[in-house]
Amino acid sequence: MTLLLQPYHDGSAAHVTPGVYDEGDVISVKVRVPHAAGVKGVWLRTVRDGEPRLVRARLKRPGEHQDTYVADLVFHNQPTEYRFLLETPAIPGGYQWLNGQGVHSREVGDAADFRVTAAPSPPAWLTAGTAYQIFPDRFARSAAADHRPLPDWATPLPWGAEPAPLPPLTARQVAGGDLDGVIEHLDHLVDLHVQTLYLTPFFPGRSNHRYDASTFHSVAPLLGGDAALARLTAAAHARGLKVMGDLTTNHCGVAHEWFQRALNYPTSPEHNLFLWAGADGVPAQGADIHPKYMPGYVSWLGHHSLPKLDWRSEYVRRAMITGEDSAMAHWLKAPYRLDGWRVDVANMTGRYARHDQTVEISRLFRQTMSGLNPEAAVIAEHFFDYASDLPGDGWHAAMNYAGFSRPVWAWLGDPTTNNPQHFGLPIAFQRITGQAMVAAMRDFFARVPWQVAAAQWNNIGSHDTPRVRTRLGSAANVELAATLMFTYLGTPMMFQGDEGGATGSNGEHSRTCMPWEQIPSGGAAWETDTHAVFRGLSRLRAGRSALATGGLRWAIAADDALAYLRECEGERLLVVVARDEWAGETLPKWVLGTEPPELLYGGQVAGTPQLTVTGDGLRLAADGPAVGVWRLA
Amino acid sequence: MTLLLQPYHDGSAAHVTPGVYDEGDVISVKVRVPHAAGVKGVWLRTVRDGEPRLVRARLKRPGEHQDTYVADLVFHNQPTEYRFLLETPAIPGGYQWLNGQGVHSREVGDAADFRVTAAPSPPAWLTAGTAYQIFPDRFARSAAADHRPLPDWATPLPWGAEPAPLPPLTARQVAGGDLDGVIEHLDHLVDLHVQTLYLTPFFPGRSNHRYDASTFHSVAPLLGGDAALARLTAAAHARGLKVMGDLTTNHCGVAHEWFQRALNYPTSPEHNLFLWAGADGVPAQGADIHPKYMPGYVSWLGHHSLPKLDWRSEYVRRAMITGEDSAMAHWLKAPYRLDGWRVDVANMTGRYARHDQTVEISRLFRQTMSGLNPEAAVIAEHFFDYASDLPGDGWHAAMNYAGFSRPVWAWLGDPTTNNPQHFGLPIAFQRITGQAMVAAMRDFFARVPWQVAAAQWNNIGSHDTPRVRTRLGSAANVELAATLMFTYLGTPMMFQGDEGGATGSNGEHSRTCMPWEQIPSGGAAWETDTHAVFRGLSRLRAGRSALATGGLRWAIAADDALAYLRECEGERLLVVVARDEWAGETLPKWVLGTEPPELLYGGQVAGTPQLTVTGDGLRLAADGPAVGVWRLA
Repeated sequence: MTLLLQPYHDGSAAHVTPGVYDEGDVISVKVRVPHAAGVKGVWLRTVRDGEPRLVRARLKRPGEHQDTYVADLVFHNQPTEYRFLLETPAIPGGYQWLNGQGVHSREVGDAADFRVTAAPSPPAWLTAGTAYQIFPDRFARSAAADHRPLPDWATPLPWGAEPAPLPPLTARQVAGGDLDGVIEHLDHLVDLHVQTLYLTPFFPGRSNHRYDASTFHSVAPLLGGDAALARLTAAAHARGLKVMGDLTTNHCGVAHEWFQRALNYPTSPEHNLFLWAGADGVPAQGADIHPKYMPGYVSWLGHHSLPKLDWRSEYVRRAMITGEDSAMAHWLKAPYRLDGWRVDVANMTGRYARHDQTVEISRLFRQTMSGLNPEAAVIAEHFFDYASDLPGDGWHAAMNYAGFSRPVWAWLGDPTTNNPQHFGLPIAFQRITGQAMVAAMRDFFARVPWQVAAAQWNNIGSHDTPRVRTRLGSAANVELAATLMFTYLGTPMMFQGDEGGATGSNGEHSRTCMPWEQIPSGGAAWETDTHAVFRGLSRLRAGRSALATGGLRWAIAADDALAYLRECEGERLLVVVARDEWAGETLPKWVLGTEPPELLYGGQVAGTPQLTVTGDGLRLAADGPAVGVWRLA
Repeated sequence: MTLLLQPYHDGSAAHVTPGVYDEGDVISVKVRVPHAAGVKGVWLRTVRDGEPRLVRARLKRPGEHQDTYVADLVFHNQPTEYRFLLETPAIPGGYQWLNGQGVHSREVGDAADFRVTAAPSPPAWLTAGTAYQIFPDRFARSAAADHRPLPDWATPLPWGAEPAPLPPLTARQVAGGDLDGVIEHLDHLVDLHVQTLYLTPFFPGRSNHRYDASTFHSVAPLLGGDAALARLTAAAHARGLKVMGDLTTNHCGVAHEWFQRALNYPTSPEHNLFLWAGADGVPAQGADIHPKYMPGYVSWLGHHSLPKLDWRSEYVRRAMITGEDSAMAHWLKAPYRLDGWRVDVANMTGRYARHDQTVEISRLFRQTMSGLNPEAAVIAEHFFDYASDLPGDGWHAAMNYAGFSRPVWAWLGDPTTNNPQHFGLPIAFQRITGQAMVAAMRDFFARVPWQVAAAQWNNIGSHDTPRVRTRLGSAANVELAATLMFTYLGTPMMFQGDEGGATGSNGEHSRTCMPWEQIPSGGAAWETDTHAVFRGLSRLRAGRSALATGGLRWAIAADDALAYLRECEGERLLVVVARDEWAGETLPKWVLGTEPPELLYGGQVAGTPQLTVTGDGLRLAADGPAVGVWRLA
């Protein structure tokens, strides 16, 4: 079945009374039920203190083709979970459940239930428009960069040269980009309709990526030092941009002042910041523990340059989060005024063997941060199943690799450029079907609260992945993926240079320098048509509340094409993406508004799907790769 | 697709090195892959501290029709989660995941991953054979019962009379069964091959069900008092039976000594045992709070006779669990020597609004109980989604309503006797398909550790449900359901009288008195053929390690029929159940052993499916309702 348009509910304002809920609050929740679904009655099922209750939903607004039911949900537990019972006599069993994954014709568990939380929503700016990831060493050099000596560990990388794809050079090559270089190119970001600038770490370290911080309390001299950061945030704020940093909460570098003291003074308080072999809850040996070094310490994935922090320690919590001048707090304050953090390796932070404080730490981080600045935001790095790490009152959301990037890459990937690795799987890459992609996206969507799903950082590439242009093999495929990224539920998060078609075969190789001299005229390292795609889509995203805060209702999932509606009060958009020739499908008449659909975005590199209003409804088809975004009046 | 027999793994000893694991232990895990599945390679994926790793599985034993792969799983987290990657080039995407639900041709989250825990397995007796539920007031009267005066709240129910189905009489009718009555009929249980006798509460209360205990420290005089319980456990133990009690951890009765002190002395320590309106974390009013009574208290589902305990209170924890003479501990000790507990309303215990100590309490209970007696067992009442409440180191398992009873009832229910309620859903009952039933069973199975799944109390009726004979409408349907109960993974838990075809339209109405005078000769209230069914199946279950500890591999899921294999080292059984005429299916040849299948159990009331060994394999079909259990040599 490729046509979806099932009975529908989500956590958006059109379906759930918005608010910060208190025990006993009555929340009005709505379901929309197309007549074609054969539903004869609707009930709300909520789980209260572990025991489900059912209340009947009232038929509020009968429509010509679709009815709206409404029910009263009493907020009680944190979160309060619910789903809908649909009486459907024509289906074996006579009923269906509607939860976050969609409609099920059988009994289901509660894991994909809708849920409301008492946690405040993320700040509005976080979801208002595009986030743009900057890898400072490779973004732009200011004139001052010419006068900075290279540190002992570094090897110069001439601006524009191909980065090394393999160690040992990958982390040592320094191209010399700095924060004043970023300031000089804010025009480029404004022109791209960027809302948030996300900087990978600015701390000093012994690598170009700086995830091996030697302190969390200063800005690397190579980047211009503390004053450069203050200049950058001031300049960005003046243009309405927000700036987020990148904090490594799982580990620091061996050169870190804390680790050096811990190592040299086993009785120092800093000793308690790390996980030492044989200490409480740490085995004497293990995959993460240096086999020769004594006493051994636990490191990130066995990279001994990155000792792992022990979050059981009150000292770590103070130093990183709760202390007056913690790593988190220091940079939120004047003169830096950072607007929030992306948290590195959030999936492993506070997790080791039988200890698991990951969610507790995320809540401590969020509470402390929001206490300092209620408008600050925090996004977790998470490549995998983030559902249990995102209850809504910890990290605002995550980098949505699992629920967005991987499904999209797998649907649009180029088999000839993705061998032999299938995104970390040791098998040859093959494309998946649109149905498999949509099922995976719905699964990951369903297991987090709406506010989280609506704030996820959807990306099609980052400094940790091959370049999207390389992975998908063509500029047309990049346009398809970008259309999904800019129109799917959540915040589009793009990596510097993707807008010019930069290439790269892995995370390190993709850390290319921005070819400023070729922008905007074009050149070997800058695809102007791809730039137009990102600019056009980012502009579309910035101006549309249906995209920023609206619901997402799946309409079509075929092998080679998919379509969804993005809807909020007063605005309805239809997004269609086909990866290949597609015989098409007809959406029922009720999807149409009162006026003919208006094309807001059509393919710049790829084609535009055919859309025809017929007697039966809205006929969609494609004669090759195509994207289209229409307004349905 | 009705033929399953997919690549297979489970937590049984044939697939996972048994043991109590420690950090760093290497556990050998095996997968069996039929050649027909087209799998070219197998990898083990494990999540370590939040980050997945893949290791290649070795082809250990190539078979003529099925290969065995083996991989090394390093125990690290508690639990350590894993699943398998199957390289399957012929399928779009080129790979599949094998997790507890089965095989998926798309990306999945981690929730249904296999998992090993460091928790010790449940005691062997718990899963060795049938558990038999006794509702003491209705099981058997000893002569002494004639001399006991009825308390003020009680109304006499003549033995054998129909219980009232509706309040106010339902809880007040006393038939006068007692614990010495149970002793007098232990022969009946031994003849039924019962392993465990589970008594609903023996505490005094103001109802026949005694879930409204007025103390947790004595046995109701109506049941014969403390000494009668000591006599019963001694007599049961002498016959090799175990005895479990029923403890209400969510609430007590308003007449309870604790609540009476709490009510009359607001400064007493007992006051802290309950949830008072307006106190910390309790709203001033709510659905569970008495609207007139001041100060209001939270009660179970608004039944004001049942005040809810506040498990945040250290006093509650001591009084119920950790204290020297706690409610839990008191009865495990001499002279009572109870073998464990069924925990009432476990799904709500310790859960209220923003407080949730449910899992914490289950762990405290388990640890404390196992410290007193490592051979004691604890089973949670849970009608709903128990997955997050059963991590493996708390309750040993649950009453498996969600993962067994409801799917089976919904597949076999009689539409004419189940209207207008569909097991608590406000819609007319319709049968579900076998595929929907199997999918639900696999879902609930997949989200708990193997040791839990293998200890679940599967039931087809209890003192809280309509009688299975009424619900399913015919003795033949009862035989179908019973065959599933006695052969499915977990422990069969039957309710007194179901073995004689007792009827009843709801939980209260089903609390019928045992018609001893009609056993074994038969009579209006005793179906001897149904007795033969339960006796035969319970005997089959008691003697088979494949049923007690073996794996369960789904073979067929059709609308009207299903089949699975139960397998352990040295024994393989095939279970087939058809609810109607069934055109049939052929299992591949490799399912057969070296000798012809031997029928161990065929329909006594229903028919027996046709099983034919053909050139292609094992042909199964049925010309009407049928059950069969075969040994495959």
